[in-house]
Amino acid sequence: MVNENQHTCSASSSSKSDGSSSGSESSKDSSRCSTPVLDADRHERLREKMRRRQDSGDKWFSLEFFPPRTANAAVNLISRFDRMGAGGPLFIDVTWHPAGDPGSDKETSSMIIANTAVNYCGLETILHMTCCNQTKDEITGHLQKAKRLGLKNIMALRGDPIGEEWEEEVDGFNYAVDLVKHIRNEFDDYFDICVAGYPKGHPEAQSYEADLRHLKEKVLAGADFIITQLFFRSETFLKFMKDCQAIGITCPIIPGIFPIQGYHSLRQLVKLSKLEVPQEIKDVIEPIKDNDAAIRNYGVELAVSMCRELLDSGMVHGVHFYTLNREVATTEVLKRLGLWKEDPRRPLPWAVSAHPKRRVEDVRPIFWASRPKSYIYRTQEWDDFPNGRWGNSSSPAFGELKDYYLFYLKSKSPREELLKMWGEELTGEESVFEVFTCYITREPNKNGHKVTCMPWNDDPLATETNLLKEQLEKVNRRGILTINSQPNINGKPSTDPIVGWGPSGGYVFQKAYLEFFASSEIVTALLKVLKKYELRVNYHIVNVKGQNITNAPDLQPNAVTWGIFPGREIIQPTVVDPVSFLFWKDEAFALWIEQWGKLYEEESPSRMIIQYIHDNYYLVNLVDNDFPLENCLWQVVDDTFELLN
Amino acid sequence: MVNENQHTCSASSSSKSDGSSSGSESSKDSSRCSTPVLDADRHERLREKMRRRQDSGDKWFSLEFFPPRTANAAVNLISRFDRMGAGGPLFIDVTWHPAGDPGSDKETSSMIIANTAVNYCGLETILHMTCCNQTKDEITGHLQKAKRLGLKNIMALRGDPIGEEWEEEVDGFNYAVDLVKHIRNEFDDYFDICVAGYPKGHPEAQSYEADLRHLKEKVLAGADFIITQLFFRSETFLKFMKDCQAIGITCPIIPGIFPIQGYHSLRQLVKLSKLEVPQEIKDVIEPIKDNDAAIRNYGVELAVSMCRELLDSGMVHGVHFYTLNREVATTEVLKRLGLWKEDPRRPLPWAVSAHPKRRVEDVRPIFWASRPKSYIYRTQEWDDFPNGRWGNSSSPAFGELKDYYLFYLKSKSPREELLKMWGEELTGEESVFEVFTCYITREPNKNGHKVTCMPWNDDPLATETNLLKEQLEKVNRRGILTINSQPNINGKPSTDPIVGWGPSGGYVFQKAYLEFFASSEIVTALLKVLKKYELRVNYHIVNVKGQNITNAPDLQPNAVTWGIFPGREIIQPTVVDPVSFLFWKDEAFALWIEQWGKLYEEESPSRMIIQYIHDNYYLVNLVDNDFPLENCLWQVVDDTFELLN
Repeated sequence: MVNENQHTCSASSSSKSDGSSSGSESSKDSSRCSTPVLDADRHERLREKMRRRQDSGDKWFSLEFFPPRTANAAVNLISRFDRMGAGGPLFIDVTWHPAGDPGSDKETSSMIIANTAVNYCGLETILHMTCCNQTKDEITGHLQKAKRLGLKNIMALRGDPIGEEWEEEVDGFNYAVDLVKHIRNEFDDYFDICVAGYPKGHPEAQSYEADLRHLKEKVLAGADFIITQLFFRSETFLKFMKDCQAIGITCPIIPGIFPIQGYHSLRQLVKLSKLEVPQEIKDVIEPIKDNDAAIRNYGVELAVSMCRELLDSGMVHGVHFYTLNREVATTEVLKRLGLWKEDPRRPLPWAVSAHPKRRVEDVRPIFWASRPKSYIYRTQEWDDFPNGRWGNSSSPAFGELKDYYLFYLKSKSPREELLKMWGEELTGEESVFEVFTCYITREPNKNGHKVTCMPWNDDPLATETNLLKEQLEKVNRRGILTINSQPNINGKPSTDPIVGWGPSGGYVFQKAYLEFFASSEIVTALLKVLKKYELRVNYHIVNVKGQNITNAPDLQPNAVTWGIFPGREIIQPTVVDPVSFLFWKDEAFALWIEQWGKLYEEESPSRMIIQYIHDNYYLVNLVDNDFPLENCLWQVVDDTFELLN
Repeated sequence: MVNENQHTCSASSSSKSDGSSSGSESSKDSSRCSTPVLDADRHERLREKMRRRQDSGDKWFSLEFFPPRTANAAVNLISRFDRMGAGGPLFIDVTWHPAGDPGSDKETSSMIIANTAVNYCGLETILHMTCCNQTKDEITGHLQKAKRLGLKNIMALRGDPIGEEWEEEVDGFNYAVDLVKHIRNEFDDYFDICVAGYPKGHPEAQSYEADLRHLKEKVLAGADFIITQLFFRSETFLKFMKDCQAIGITCPIIPGIFPIQGYHSLRQLVKLSKLEVPQEIKDVIEPIKDNDAAIRNYGVELAVSMCRELLDSGMVHGVHFYTLNREVATTEVLKRLGLWKEDPRRPLPWAVSAHPKRRVEDVRPIFWASRPKSYIYRTQEWDDFPNGRWGNSSSPAFGELKDYYLFYLKSKSPREELLKMWGEELTGEESVFEVFTCYITREPNKNGHKVTCMPWNDDPLATETNLLKEQLEKVNRRGILTINSQPNINGKPSTDPIVGWGPSGGYVFQKAYLEFFASSEIVTALLKVLKKYELRVNYHIVNVKGQNITNAPDLQPNAVTWGIFPGREIIQPTVVDPVSFLFWKDEAFALWIEQWGKLYEEESPSRMIIQYIHDNYYLVNLVDNDFPLENCLWQVVDDTFELLN
């Protein structure tokens, strides 16, 4: 009935008997203060995730993107990562084009796009890398940089030789297998390595069989899994897979799916990959070649049925999509397959980064709740991250945010749209109040435009904030310009679709929180009112010059979100921290000018109104500590207005 | 209205304006993960505590003890520390008698008694030390040892010279001031130093004035405060204090109060200290000198009225009591003065240790809840202590507990009493069940003796456990032999007199917890029942051989007590930790034999019954994770009994 377990207590052997034990991984970190494994996804390597999904029969998908050509396209691609990331891909991959300076620091480089996907979008990412016509040092340099940026997976490719007269170089990188060997030699087991498989054989291979042998060499050299070139019939892939297995390739082989999205893109891709489109597909497409919608519908149908066949075969556990950087067709295929899973449950209340050094991060100041990418940016130089508690952050060394125009921090909306939303011309502080109010109500402004973003929040209001909508509208109208808030929550299930997070079976809690800008007149009244709420309400009030008023005890952080889970320590993922508040303050005030003021001509009345607010208003945040009672912050605000009248 | 505060954010300057700010200490630890200052007492030096109490007008008291003569007396003295510690002394002090080997490792030495007070009783403690007739090396050795043991305060004294012909040694330690200088030279500011003041002048001093000058030298040499010799009239002290101030002594001067407790002890003390008893006291005492009770009553009256005069003078903020190791008179004086404050509120749910390296400790496994001294003993070699979270404790390196007879771990009750409580003769497992049941019910056993302690708990049942009394009685009767439990608590005020802890204005929570011994028959049924409760109930079940059954996820600790406080991070002071459970198991099983079995002859039937239980029973602990719902653990136990029937 029981297992033997020495009292010297080896961590990995003390559980499981009679089938009732949970948790399969033993903890390798044996220090007394490691992080609880709340979310296995953050701690596993890609190949382990694949294995776990395969073992549990949980089918998955992945998405391939190529780097953008322009900075604007980069902004759009990052939004696409965020949107398509919501569907739950196991990973994405970013292709590598030697002609496009792929390892550079340009915002359009493969390296920087992959970096952004990992660090700012929290996506498990594979960076492609080719080796043909490159020196060992160049390649090592790219790999070192990738590692430094937190990338953990490489797709090792030969790449297309430049020029016609390519010849093997002695001791050079002639084939993908050379790159695989190099990565394993130089970086040991650090990277997960993916290689390409060709279900019809590589076009340059001597034969299909010879190509299979090359593939086996790549696996033997250290590749962890295989993604295939696109194909048009499921039989093609299934035969290929059996042939691979027959010669002893046992690692995962992932079919590459190309949903036909248009006549021209198909032709181009076929030309590049030297594949032949089967006659039955040509027969359908040719007659409708000028009808984009019809072709796309057909492409979706075809992809869906092919994926179904693959998944139903029992041999395929995940499918890889060549998206061509487009969203619609792939998303539709995934939804129809039931693979698109917008899981309302979150491992933590904020979006985690996939950088390995941030694996243990489980506490953040709430100030950046709507600007997680900026928070990640400003803490990118940190060597370790808060784990379990925030502690007293007297010297957290936040980076300054000067680069408001970094593509991954930039507003998705162009200047003209912002002007329509926030006003072509401001006539006074009231017109600013109006913008804030419209953002809350989602009603069109007086020019008929909906306000879907604000300088402090590039997205429409969170579902959770909707719970506070009525009160928020009322106060914004009167000049309490809210930028962040949360309601109090006294123990809702962790599976709650709106406020839930973390593993199931737990309970989540919140202290009510409200952050806003207000004039010094309002703040003077507010401070009088706050005396009545001493102890119950913690406040931090600061202006752009750093004049700071607070009642926070000993500058300690205040946990405002926490969760209690079965068999775990308590997780407290957001805090109001008096010290980092002052770093946030710099950013919050700067956004007035950088994002809003600069839309207008210098010296223009509109610009001066924003400048006035920037110079004279206070940033206020309030926490109601009495989370089991009704949120008193609205009463605080009402009392303040009453005092002013 | 506001303070200037740079955004570089110096931790100590960003609070307080308009009088509404709380918390006066800036945090000196600036790492991102320091402990929140839940309880200033744990972080301040004694001289800072004194100053804070003086500033807030919060009067205090302290207690002087001498080291015991025998091991049994040491056990009693430690219980007295625990009982008198409950009244809230600012500190205690332990005297030093050169003839009694005061710096040795004997359980009766001053050093070990002071060590026990600090580490095991959590009392701020001053160790006396004399220097007369000792070498520099001897003294340095004592001081180093004191520091190593976590002692932070020294009362620097000359001590009585041995023999009649004492002469000053050149470069030797001739006066207390030499010791003060030595401590400051060798240990810088590590120790707080106290020196003695003589309100009537030291008997060997040339004059009262000369003695005042000596006192000032001691203060100039680095003493932090002064405790006076006893005196009989408040005017004596007040005059002395004014005289001290007049010559520029500004540090705290604490009056030493001697409640007269008997004719002989008074005579002896007076002889030793070369003081004269005022005529008006002699006049009262002489006629009643054989009536101890009358003398004690008079002594209490006298002490109360003298303390009142002193405290009312406005010059005295704390009073120091020469207890002569007795409890009654001093406690009565303190209660009548209103200084005895049994604060039901606790900084944490368990008794903290006063060792400086344990200052940050705020998480412990719940297993040692009733044996905190044993927990401290087994973790005394740890260099750092869990702060904020327990984490995965794969290798916590608990010391083995072999020394069950260490005086501070020993039962307060002698063998004869234990036999009366636990049975002169056991007739079967049922007679053991009976003992457990009587301990819960507080009813006398069949021989008419109340069971006031158990091997796992040297004290009567905690008030909190009373909440579970009925159910506990029922299950113990049937062989579920409970040794530790707590009810679930879903957000009671932190000031709750029974389950509250931590600062006011907070809420405390608990997961229901039950720990017991049971036969393998019961455990087999229990395991079947537990399948129904999977996820909701975490269990750890182990026998003496270490056969272990658990469903704890990834061997992570489960927080079972936590508190949410205004403006703080979350505190989670007790956890069920799967790894340290196996260390606790060794102790829990050993206590059957060490404390109970060994009361009987070897091979006796009683001894064999205990041995059988030790060898065959399981130690079980259960946690109900669903703290907002009604505790399901009783249902689990009921289901188990039902299955057995």
